[in-house]
Amino acid sequence: MAKRIDKQAAAGLLLGLDDIVIVMHKNPDGDALGSGFALCAALRSLGKRVNAWCDSPISPRYGYMTEPMQDMAFTPQCYVAVDTADRPLLGARFVDIEVELCIDHHGSNTGYANNLWCVPDSASCAELVAQLIDALIVPLDAYIARCLYTGVTSDTGCFRYANTTPDSLRLGARLIETGIDNVALNNLLFEVKSRGRFELEQMAMAGVEITAGGKVAFMTITQEMLHLTGIDAADIEGITAIPRNIEGVEAGVTLRELKNGNIKVSLRTGDIDASAVAAQFGGGGHKRAAGFEVSGTPYDIKVAVVAALEPLLV
Amino acid sequence: MAKRIDKQAAAGLLLGLDDIVIVMHKNPDGDALGSGFALCAALRSLGKRVNAWCDSPISPRYGYMTEPMQDMAFTPQCYVAVDTADRPLLGARFVDIEVELCIDHHGSNTGYANNLWCVPDSASCAELVAQLIDALIVPLDAYIARCLYTGVTSDTGCFRYANTTPDSLRLGARLIETGIDNVALNNLLFEVKSRGRFELEQMAMAGVEITAGGKVAFMTITQEMLHLTGIDAADIEGITAIPRNIEGVEAGVTLRELKNGNIKVSLRTGDIDASAVAAQFGGGGHKRAAGFEVSGTPYDIKVAVVAALEPLLV
Repeated sequence: MAKRIDKQAAAGLLLGLDDIVIVMHKNPDGDALGSGFALCAALRSLGKRVNAWCDSPISPRYGYMTEPMQDMAFTPQCYVAVDTADRPLLGARFVDIEVELCIDHHGSNTGYANNLWCVPDSASCAELVAQLIDALIVPLDAYIARCLYTGVTSDTGCFRYANTTPDSLRLGARLIETGIDNVALNNLLFEVKSRGRFELEQMAMAGVEITAGGKVAFMTITQEMLHLTGIDAADIEGITAIPRNIEGVEAGVTLRELKNGNIKVSLRTGDIDASAVAAQFGGGGHKRAAGFEVSGTPYDIKVAVVAALEPLLV
Repeated sequence: MAKRIDKQAAAGLLLGLDDIVIVMHKNPDGDALGSGFALCAALRSLGKRVNAWCDSPISPRYGYMTEPMQDMAFTPQCYVAVDTADRPLLGARFVDIEVELCIDHHGSNTGYANNLWCVPDSASCAELVAQLIDALIVPLDAYIARCLYTGVTSDTGCFRYANTTPDSLRLGARLIETGIDNVALNNLLFEVKSRGRFELEQMAMAGVEITAGGKVAFMTITQEMLHLTGIDAADIEGITAIPRNIEGVEAGVTLRELKNGNIKVSLRTGDIDASAVAAQFGGGGHKRAAGFEVSGTPYDIKVAVVAALEPLLV
């Protein structure tokens, strides 16, 4: 098991390392990439040889982070993981490496690294990297600020989600003060939708059904819709918010047809305990976001879900 | 013309007043209401008789601000305006009042009050009221914090718009630290859509047309759609973002049929100068958001707009 260390110890450890590869989890999101590239830039500014890698292609939309940070040529002497709760999430390429230090904000971190600095209350890993960069006495240049801004805003929905803390907002303030174009980043990260995502929303929204006196809304996504729009899994993220965010709706339910013909049902609720409802169908999750997988026709599933929800509606 | 004063002078002026009516502009948004009710609560906590009024009904969604702030009975001795750039915006009921002090963040403020504290760089009026409340040495209780949070997030799109400053984010941090349920407020203010708005988006999105190699997107809103959804003008706000925010689109164009049969065309752009394009049709606006009103069929208007845009596409 990892030795749990604090920020100062993590900074001290990093100062003693060189020829470092920073590893971000596979299918990296903005927080993994922002954390990895910001730390890479900070350590390079101290004269170290450092690369930031992950075992997945990185979306071209993040080119403002990847392009200025070209690989340096060296033989890796040690690995540092960021934002990665468990070893398999590093991907096949890195699953067997010895991780000297892991910096993470997931309470579920399995302690696979030799040393772990983990702060579960932190909304983003980028906030921890920002603290480390301060401890390393590296100034926040525009590149580092863009990376950290990407991280903190990706994981907080631009300061909108429940995990947003005063620290998240204060880091945002500091980063904007460096003069970065936060508005361009906000547009890129939060406003612009891919053509496929837009087309999927067109189709899925057109089929939304509202029932139970306006308190339950269903949205259905079929394999055919996914096929027609050519959308990939990452681009479906967050679509379950659509039925949930209709005024008066207490439970937004998304039915997604899987390749095996089963239906994945996602429940998004306000006061209703979504995980208890999902448990009735053999699933689980959190209080306001839960799900289960089931076979059957969309009609039969909807009838069963309404029956389970009805006693709970206010 | 108003005497321009600073924060300390505004605080001193308020301390000398009593039996005050704070007036917010008609059709009040979250910033007008948040600013007015926060200032009302702060002045009441100093033992003064104060009401916060406006010449429009206030949406029930803002009940968490209006309900705890019931009117006090007194004969008004003076009026203080917040977030109101010009006298007619106060509404017919207040258009003739003598305004002793105006607190505003609109650079266009006409100076209709006896005394004006105006900071155009402030993203929201609520940020100015927060500074005043500090100057009055009134602590931020949960009610005041909810009002100010509503103000700053309403005018910055929850810290997403171009006007967001480090001060906006730092005020957000302080307000969350008071323990308010910022997530419930975010849902109410930014996530939940009325049934009518949702249905309008269903219809309008289904009809989006993308042309010019994916660089121009048109969305059309007819009088019939508005009629079917029973939507009011306030609830259409921001819908022009839909065609604009499709990946690759350089100009999002919304055609809205008016009651007089004309078409209101709204242009939303990235690098293209929208105001210059609108000017070709007798309209105007800002660089990235402009519009014009024209008669004709939607088809003819779209052809004319594409012809005007094509030389400007990258």
